Formats: sequence, structure tokens, C-alpha cells
Amino acid sequence: MTAGTDNPRRLQIEEAASALFRERGYAATSVRDIAQALNLQGGSLYAHVASKEDVLWSIVNRAADRFNSEVGPVATDADATPADRLANMIRAHVGVVTSIQKDAAVFLHEWRFLSPARRADIQARRDAYEGLFRAAIRDGIDSGAFRDVDPHLTAAAILSSLNGIATWYSPSGPLSETQIADQHAELFLAALEKPKIGG
Amino acid sequence: MTAGTDNPRRLQIEEAASALFRERGYAATSVRDIAQALNLQGGSLYAHVASKEDVLWSIVNRAADRFNSEVGPVATDADATPADRLANMIRAHVGVVTSIQKDAAVFLHEWRFLSPARRADIQARRDAYEGLFRAAIRDGIDSGAFRDVDPHLTAAAILSSLNGIATWYSPSGPLSETQIADQHAELFLAALEKPKIGG
Repeated sequence: MTAGTDNPRRLQIEEAASALFRERGYAATSVRDIAQALNLQGGSLYAHVASKEDVLWSIVNRAADRFNSEVGPVATDADATPADRLANMIRAHVGVVTSIQKDAAVFLHEWRFLSPARRADIQARRDAYEGLFRAAIRDGIDSGAFRDVDPHLTAAAILSSLNGIATWYSPSGPLSETQIADQHAELFLAALEKPKIGG
Repeated sequence: MTAGTDNPRRLQIEEAASALFRERGYAATSVRDIAQALNLQGGSLYAHVASKEDVLWSIVNRAADRFNSEVGPVATDADATPADRLANMIRAHVGVVTSIQKDAAVFLHEWRFLSPARRADIQARRDAYEGLFRAAIRDGIDSGAFRDVDPHLTAAAILSSLNGIATWYSPSGPLSETQIADQHAELFLAALEKPKIGG
């Protein structure tokens, strides 16, 4: 499923492309721009990549894999309460956004420029991923820990917030990655948990 | 400040452009694409617009004006409690997103393609607008109604959620505009308000 690679030159190309796609957008970035960022001739780039879309596909796939590998295990942790499970999922998602910020931004905003078949593949993966959040919310409601909210709308609201971090986060900003992750988890848990009687 | 116009042909052009910018992105849309969508010759479009960026500027400005004119008055309503004020701001913001969904999406995602001076202008307006949300959150904390959260992070989290609606909202979907607005207001008020003792 993953189109990625461990070839170091290819990884350099993807890193330069990710920075350009994020800054200018995929459509406004040419293969020549990517080559120039690496001090290469445009033509020599094609020894490493089949097309500009292929580079986008690698970046997007790698980011999708990362979200799944970080959030998947905590989403299926049967030992955690629904509240702890959702809090851990939020923290893990924010951790991915802040640690691969450029790729995450490209994944979130540029994936629509993939060819139809690849776009459909990513759409399906995104839907399944959002389904993990809906399931955690539903479990919290069923267990009596959460208020009776709409799991669809609430999962979308949570993920839009967390994905927004890719736009405003700065490693030199006043809040650490952990603080941002914890404060989002706290905010949404407070939104969902029923107030404790006498609390 | 507003670059908009009431010229009906110009408004048609902006509407066609907004649909294309949203679907393909600004960079991937040509003046010829906009003309074709209106069954015009590319050249004749220039009788109505100076440049593609000028059309983007009009769309973005009109959307910014709309957010300010709908949210500004409720943000400064001195008779409302901080909680009611923030809830009304959230509902008003969602109302704009759902009622001018295409223009809102272009405003939110394509404004970065404006020329530097215009981008700086919109950046300043966005910062001031987000400041209204920060102020409402700060007022809620100061009055003792809200928990002691970070107003910056919380305003960003709320606005990212509300802006995400521009991506997923469908007028034919299961939730009405009012339900979406109310449920977001409820969610974030629950996140912020201190639990009432014995509640």
C-alpha cells in the first residue's frame, strides 16, 4: 500500500517537495521547482521519481501510515476507559501533526490533487481513521461516561481542531508539543464527559 | 477596503471563479477556465476583471466582511453573559460558513495566494477576528464562568473546528445549518463552562 521508499535521494526529493507543496500548494509547484530546491537539473529528477503526483502520493501515504501506526494501537486498547482511550487518541494525533508538520499539512490540504483512484484510496483511509474517533465517542456514550452527542459531528469537530494545529504550530512558540496535545485532550474530554455529581 | 462590486456580470464571474478555486485550487485555475465556465472568450473576461488575483481578492474580502458583519455585533453585545456571547459568536460564524460555503472555503484555503500586501491585509483582519474569540474566552474566565484555559489555543481550536464545516457540510446532509451551529456551540460551551455544583 505504501509508495514510500528508503532511498536517501528519493527521501530528499520528497522532503523538498513537501516544503514546496506546503508553501505554494501542489498545483503551483513544478518538478523544476523541486529540482532547483535540491540544486539538480529538472531532467535528472526523473531518474528518481516518475511524476510530481508520484511524489505527492508518497508524502500523503507516509503521513497516513504514520497517523494509523500512532493512533491505531491506542484506539484499540481494550484496557483503557473510553475517556482515556479518546484522550490518548487525541494526544497521539497531535503528536503526529507536530512531529511531521510539513507532511501532515500536505496530507491534509493537497491530497485532493491526487489522481481519482489514489484520491479514492486516501478518502477510504481517512474515513476509516475518522471512524476510530466516532467509535471511541460512541463507546463513551454507551458506557454512560459521555453526554449524548452526535458522534459524526463531534469526531469531525475534534479532528478539524487537531488538524488546524498543522497550520498554526511553531516549534519556537510558547507551547510545547506535549502542552498542545494535553490541552486539546482536556478541552474535548471536558466537552464530552458528564459532569460528576457534586464535582 | 472592500474590492467587491454590485455589477451583475462581475458577480457572475466571481461566483464561477469561487466554484473553480474551491474545486481545483486557485493556482490550478486559469482565467480561461473561468471564462469557459461562463461560456465567454478568455479575452472578454478582462473587460470585467483586472486579473485572476483581483477576483480572488474580491471573493476573500467579501467573505471577511461577512464574518465581521455577522459576528462583530454579537461579539460586542454588552448585555449578554460571556457564555451566551461566545455561544452566539459560534452560531453566527457557523451560519456564515454554511450560507456562503464556497466563498468561505476559498477565503479559508486560497487567501495565501494573494499578493504579499493583500495577504498581509487579510492576515491582520483574521488576527483581529480571532481576537474577538480570545476576548470572549478571557471574559468568561475572568467572570468565573469558564475554566482557566489558554485563550489563544482555545480560540484556535474552536475556529479550526468551525472552519472545518466548510469542508464537510452538505445542504442535503442529515443535519440542518441550525443543528450544526447549535451542536458546535453546545460542545464548546460544555468544554469551557465550570461544572455547576450538584449539576
